[in-house]
Amino acid sequence: MEREKIENILVIHGPNLNLVGVREKKVYGTESYENINHRLLQQAERLGVRVEIFQSNHEGEIIDKIHAAFGNVDGIIINPGAYTHYSIAIRDAIKGVDMPAVEVHLSNVHAREEFRAKSVIAPVCKGQISGFGGDSYILGLYALAGR
Amino acid sequence: MEREKIENILVIHGPNLNLVGVREKKVYGTESYENINHRLLQQAERLGVRVEIFQSNHEGEIIDKIHAAFGNVDGIIINPGAYTHYSIAIRDAIKGVDMPAVEVHLSNVHAREEFRAKSVIAPVCKGQISGFGGDSYILGLYALAGR
Amino acid sequence: MEREKIENILVIHGPNLNLVGVREKKVYGTESYENINHRLLQQAERLGVRVEIFQSNHEGEIIDKIHAAFGNVDGIIINPGAYTHYSIAIRDAIKGVDMPAVEVHLSNVHAREEFRAKSVIAPVCKGQISGFGGDSYILGLYALAGR
Amino acid sequence: MEREKIENILVIHGPNLNLVGVREKKVYGTESYENINHRLLQQAERLGVRVEIFQSNHEGEIIDKIHAAFGNVDGIIINPGAYTHYSIAIRDAIKGVDMPAVEVHLSNVHAREEFRAKSVIAPVCKGQISGFGGDSYILGLYALAGR
Amino acid sequence: MEREKIENILVIHGPNLNLVGVREKKVYGTESYENINHRLLQQAERLGVRVEIFQSNHEGEIIDKIHAAFGNVDGIIINPGAYTHYSIAIRDAIKGVDMPAVEVHLSNVHAREEFRAKSVIAPVCKGQISGFGGDSYILGLYALAGR
Amino acid sequence: MEREKIENILVIHGPNLNLVGVREKKVYGTESYENINHRLLQQAERLGVRVEIFQSNHEGEIIDKIHAAFGNVDGIIINPGAYTHYSIAIRDAIKGVDMPAVEVHLSNVHAREEFRAKSVIAPVCKGQISGFGGDSYILGLYALAGR
Amino acid sequence: MEREKIENILVIHGPNLNLVGVREKKVYGTESYENINHRLLQQAERLGVRVEIFQSNHEGEIIDKIHAAFGNVDGIIINPGAYTHYSIAIRDAIKGVDMPAVEVHLSNVHAREEFRAKSVIAPVCKGQISGFGGDSYILGLYALAGR
Amino acid sequence: MEREKIENILVIHGPNLNLVGVREKKVYGTESYENINHRLLQQAERLGVRVEIFQSNHEGEIIDKIHAAFGNVDGIIINPGAYTHYSIAIRDAIKGVDMPAVEVHLSNVHAREEFRAKSVIAPVCKGQISGFGGDSYILGLYALAGR
Amino acid sequence: MEREKIENILVIHGPNLNLVGVREKKVYGTESYENINHRLLQQAERLGVRVEIFQSNHEGEIIDKIHAAFGNVDGIIINPGAYTHYSIAIRDAIKGVDMPAVEVHLSNVHAREEFRAKSVIAPVCKGQISGFGGDSYILGLYALAGR
Amino acid sequence: MEREKIENILVIHGPNLNLVGVREKKVYGTESYENINHRLLQQAERLGVRVEIFQSNHEGEIIDKIHAAFGNVDGIIINPGAYTHYSIAIRDAIKGVDMPAVEVHLSNVHAREEFRAKSVIAPVCKGQISGFGGDSYILGLYALAGR
Amino acid sequence: MEREKIENILVIHGPNLNLVGVREKKVYGTESYENINHRLLQQAERLGVRVEIFQSNHEGEIIDKIHAAFGNVDGIIINPGAYTHYSIAIRDAIKGVDMPAVEVHLSNVHAREEFRAKSVIAPVCKGQISGFGGDSYILGLYALAGR
Amino acid sequence: MEREKIENILVIHGPNLNLVGVREKKVYGTESYENINHRLLQQAERLGVRVEIFQSNHEGEIIDKIHAAFGNVDGIIINPGAYTHYSIAIRDAIKGVDMPAVEVHLSNVHAREEFRAKSVIAPVCKGQISGFGGDSYILGLYALAGR
Repeated sequence: MEREKIENILVIHGPNLNLVGVREKKVYGTESYENINHRLLQQAERLGVRVEIFQSNHEGEIIDKIHAAFGNVDGIIINPGAYTHYSIAIRDAIKGVDMPAVEVHLSNVHAREEFRAKSVIAPVCKGQISGFGGDSYILGLYALAGR
Repeated sequence: MEREKIENILVIHGPNLNLVGVREKKVYGTESYENINHRLLQQAERLGVRVEIFQSNHEGEIIDKIHAAFGNVDGIIINPGAYTHYSIAIRDAIKGVDMPAVEVHLSNVHAREEFRAKSVIAPVCKGQISGFGGDSYILGLYALAGR
Repeated sequence: MEREKIENILVIHGPNLNLVGVREKKVYGTESYENINHRLLQQAERLGVRVEIFQSNHEGEIIDKIHAAFGNVDGIIINPGAYTHYSIAIRDAIKGVDMPAVEVHLSNVHAREEFRAKSVIAPVCKGQISGFGGDSYILGLYALAGR
Repeated sequence: MEREKIENILVIHGPNLNLVGVREKKVYGTESYENINHRLLQQAERLGVRVEIFQSNHEGEIIDKIHAAFGNVDGIIINPGAYTHYSIAIRDAIKGVDMPAVEVHLSNVHAREEFRAKSVIAPVCKGQISGFGGDSYILGLYALAGR
Repeated sequence: MEREKIENILVIHGPNLNLVGVREKKVYGTESYENINHRLLQQAERLGVRVEIFQSNHEGEIIDKIHAAFGNVDGIIINPGAYTHYSIAIRDAIKGVDMPAVEVHLSNVHAREEFRAKSVIAPVCKGQISGFGGDSYILGLYALAGR
Repeated sequence: MEREKIENILVIHGPNLNLVGVREKKVYGTESYENINHRLLQQAERLGVRVEIFQSNHEGEIIDKIHAAFGNVDGIIINPGAYTHYSIAIRDAIKGVDMPAVEVHLSNVHAREEFRAKSVIAPVCKGQISGFGGDSYILGLYALAGR
Repeated sequence: MEREKIENILVIHGPNLNLVGVREKKVYGTESYENINHRLLQQAERLGVRVEIFQSNHEGEIIDKIHAAFGNVDGIIINPGAYTHYSIAIRDAIKGVDMPAVEVHLSNVHAREEFRAKSVIAPVCKGQISGFGGDSYILGLYALAGR
Repeated sequence: MEREKIENILVIHGPNLNLVGVREKKVYGTESYENINHRLLQQAERLGVRVEIFQSNHEGEIIDKIHAAFGNVDGIIINPGAYTHYSIAIRDAIKGVDMPAVEVHLSNVHAREEFRAKSVIAPVCKGQISGFGGDSYILGLYALAGR
Repeated sequence: MEREKIENILVIHGPNLNLVGVREKKVYGTESYENINHRLLQQAERLGVRVEIFQSNHEGEIIDKIHAAFGNVDGIIINPGAYTHYSIAIRDAIKGVDMPAVEVHLSNVHAREEFRAKSVIAPVCKGQISGFGGDSYILGLYALAGR
Repeated sequence: MEREKIENILVIHGPNLNLVGVREKKVYGTESYENINHRLLQQAERLGVRVEIFQSNHEGEIIDKIHAAFGNVDGIIINPGAYTHYSIAIRDAIKGVDMPAVEVHLSNVHAREEFRAKSVIAPVCKGQISGFGGDSYILGLYALAGR
Repeated sequence: MEREKIENILVIHGPNLNLVGVREKKVYGTESYENINHRLLQQAERLGVRVEIFQSNHEGEIIDKIHAAFGNVDGIIINPGAYTHYSIAIRDAIKGVDMPAVEVHLSNVHAREEFRAKSVIAPVCKGQISGFGGDSYILGLYALAGR
Repeated sequence: MEREKIENILVIHGPNLNLVGVREKKVYGTESYENINHRLLQQAERLGVRVEIFQSNHEGEIIDKIHAAFGNVDGIIINPGAYTHYSIAIRDAIKGVDMPAVEVHLSNVHAREEFRAKSVIAPVCKGQISGFGGDSYILGLYALAGR
């Protein structure tokens, strides 16, 4: 793959993702939040990109972070959690900073409650990856910065 | 009633509930926010349970609080206010911590605007009580910890 | 709580509630129909109110009963069962006699099939309590006649 | 115009509006956020009203601010940004403080994506002005405090 | 008017109509149920037709009555009350006996809750008259048997 | 019936009604437009009221006529024809002049295409009569001015 | 076929089915209600099962009958007539007694008005058979008790 | 039963039915595809009719087969599998050849995902049988050719 | 503000606006139609622009007028009244002449019946101003021609 | 083609079509209104039919014209412009005069805004032709009167 | 007409069109499939264009054929039959080869079942012609290649 | 990543994908179909898995292929093209063979026409990857067989 200009990536974990591996393991898998981040940093090193990891349960903080990233990172990997389905504010933030973004999900959002299949954020992203547990993030990293 | 293992309860007041008794008295009644809390604490003492009261207008803070309660309380009484109708993030937080929760409302949400009849949070709660003013909280307390 | 003028209460069990404790225990719990009524009468005595209990699978009989209650009781606790979702006729009866009514449900109607979340009767009631098994009735009694 | 009792006005810029003039100029125009505020203050002076300007990407902070304004300002000009379309919590806050509020938008929300035409906040405002870039705020000021 | 073959008419009052003049006078008017029937009988005499009056809150009894009318009456005036909006069973009964029927309403069903504008019964009737209080029945009588 | 203050009535025939008795006799009946008017005038004389008859295929002319009637007539009988289903402008005109109006239809609009069951005008009228051919107008006259 | 434990079957005819063969022969066929029952009993004898036949136009009586069948019959054949489309109460009754039930219809409900294609009862039945006139019942008998 | 003129029947198994008995046994039962066909042929012999069995996963081949059957068979038993829900082309083919057709389903389509309750093909069939496993086909055979 | 090239403006009042100040004062305010026009002309003079005022209840005349304005005016202020919600023909006329247009409303269309929130015309205008009584027009003038 | 009895044709251009070739050339093409009419007359001469051309922006005038055509022409070619999507009144006029009519459109209405794909008029026409610029009219002429 | 560069045209008949003139003559007319093709070839010769005719009931074969036409023909006339309403795959094929295509229908799809009015293919065609029997194809030919 | 048991993978390209790199390059990118396959085979070799590549425009052939893969491959990568949005038959085939499947898309289906956001197939897959051009396939390969 040839996404070569991406050197700095912001990874955003949305609401409740800090509980991953602890809560609802049947839906989200057993891999811990820390392990996902560890794997992300490892892969980033292998690919020669810098990755900053951020988690917040606050819609506003996620927007602030996206704004702050403007000019400092080349791409965004975001798992918006439940905000996926209604935060037009995060959508507008991503559209506003005009960087390639990849929406990722641990679970397959198309195989759960009807309302989870709809993303208001994906239309302003480069693409969406859902259903592969922690691997969804790694695949998002490859999608943005892979070789 | 026999909910006897419940000893610590978190009461969450969602957005705008700090104004209760001041604003829109026709809809929400004249009992003040302070009085509802006072009555809650009194009843809790009578039932031999500890109650912590928390209010926030911030969706993110409510989620943070629910996470923090994990392992420290045995049940949640939540009036999600307007978030009732769209905060899938709060829904996921409650589902994540996997504790009995009771959704309460001052007004009868089924007798107001169409959109207020729909709760995205109630499906992950034990039950819902709506329409009894400050009593809705007391009834919620009985429902969780009553004898 | 201060609903003190309520001295006579009619409790209406709608269709299929006579089978409670026998059928679908996973959904409706294991407490028998008789036990719920027994508890109701006990609590009523404690609160110093008279309670009449009525069950029917017939929409028309429920309406007749509500009409007959007009002038004889001060409040109604009603579990309309499946009629909750379509009996505008029962709604009109309750509206017509103009007494405080509380809609109660054994199961959490917001956590089952989509169509069960919608009540055509709740909009003319004082409030709705759902999800606490037989306790829903007791809570309804407190909501109407509690001290 | 004769809105003469309005002397103190709170102007609220919702999420992402801090990026105006920088991001998506085709949609939102080229006038900078600072310039809009500058013009607002200038016009306010001309009209003899005091204007306080506030921006936040946080739904909760906007609600806190509206509560804090209660008793201190006579009217609100609010561009709720993306919250326009789903923040019933902000709607309830405005309804709760019971002050004249004007909803303004830089772009013509009726000429964009279908979902932007729907405002959950406008129904509790005095009126809505959309489509005139930075002028929308100035017109909102006239609407509230004009002579 | 020339509906001359109609000599025997069945008038059916649906659920809650026995309370007319007592309940919800703002919606249904102050004329009593007895007075409406009295006027109907008077007008019938004037027109030289026999009228039988029937009231029931039971969907099943109304259907039984319609069946029993088969061969004995020439036309039906029916105010199906709340059953208007969902009793496909009454609709099928009227269709089944294949007699001219007129649906009447005291209140203007088109000016109340959205769901009251929809009649599942009117499509199998000759016509519908709504909004004229007790006069709706008299007009229905003229429509069927007028000269 | 006791509508005694009505002395002057405007009857409005909407679009295509001039063709009645000529076109689509299966739907609208065989009675001619002239005969309906003739019967209306006859009945009006019998009831001691003056009736003015107006027909137009133009939405604007119907509105102009309603405005012109303001202060000159005491009630309106209107068959809005196809405008029934979309002319909010005629609805607003009737609401604006604030006179009792009766919406009438030759055919049973509830028994035809789905879209004909919906009237945007009926909600601002006193009532609606549909399905009795030319008699619908006569019944409307009785409803407004009957004794 | 191998449904061998079924020895006692309750056949329920819902509203208006007593008119079959008399009313609307184009839709429901010319075979009389009596003849269908006669054929049912004949076939039952041939298959060595006992069949009880019940007809009612009352939703409540049908529910009462289903309850009474509990413990006395092994399966139900039900033609709910118009109740098919809205009687959640009958649905709950069938679900409650937890016996194999077969929903049958004389006419092909999928080939008539849109609303007839939707059954609220079929989801709790073993299966549905529609469109074969009186044969639908016979086929339902085979489906339950066939060899 | 008296469908006596039917002597040649085409049985069509739609997409994925070749896997029956192998895949998803919980939904479709354990009886093999071969056994269903074997039973069909046996019963046909008993009834004195000829049965041709055809399976295809191709919408176009099913249409071709229906065309080819024109003039050669007297009736069709079709399990359209997933095509049930969207193949208007198969619907038109069946309508085009104008023969009695019976739609059958192994599982109860009314008790599964919402979209499976809707058949675009059933409206042009004589009837529909669903929910009886392999017996659905046998019942379909009786429905077409039974004595 | 800097809309300086606008020198000639057409103001269009749609259906029923001639009654403003006379009818439904609670909804539309007490300021008379004449006074609104007077204020418009005054402000226009102050701003150095020419304003032509036109009112019609006829959709067709409004379209004719818009066509006639083509080449003669630089901008349009239009209150389409009830046509706002369905006149795609007026929408096409405005789009066709390709001039800046401002849609204005006396009342807050977002706070009334659901159907009034939807404008089919606003998407082809520069913007929309609603809720400020006669001031809505003055604000529209500023929006087009302000300095 | 063999439509030989058609000798007199009325061509109706609906609202805004007088601007064709001037406005929105990207959507409607560059051919002028005059040229389309010129070509129509030429082709009509070639085919030996008389064509009358009529344009109006007024819904009412179009209806009047259709009525006037009754008995004088044998067929209608109509481009209802925006009225296509809501003028049930024009639909009823065409249905009323019971002549073959062809609905034509310059642009491909199926490739534009969602609401333009829906025609309320086409269901009462012989057919619809859309997307061929001025040729759509010529094709409509062939469809009605071609050889 | 001036479509002069079109020299080679592919005519595609979709599913069931091979039965035209045989099946459902009331809907599709009595002209045979062969005659339509014969007329098409005759007209093509007259216009100096080559026409290839293809029929298939297989969605996949139609797509294969469209791909194969790429580079070999200049335009497509397609009657997608039932695929009109759901084959996004054929839509994508036509869009992919980027040639002028005309969608034609024998019957007036706007005058039949609701679902037939919706075409998923027409949006990527030049235009649509429906309702003129075999003439629809001839008109499509003129539309593409006429002089 | 640790999907280690996957050794044989079937890659299915749905309808129109053979044209990739040729048609609609703006939507699907410029990389050729051959190159995507070449890269897939290269990566598979690197990961030590066997990959079989299959393309078809026929829904039925895709189903046949999935059936044939049963027992021969360990996982499926499928780009269902337009079938994504309606082929419940392909969904059932994938569900039937019960293997891990990954749905991939070249373009971001969430950023195109509304109907493309809905997949009927994704709910039975392990996950979905969309928006990364040819890389979507490579990511799908990693997701299934990555290390």
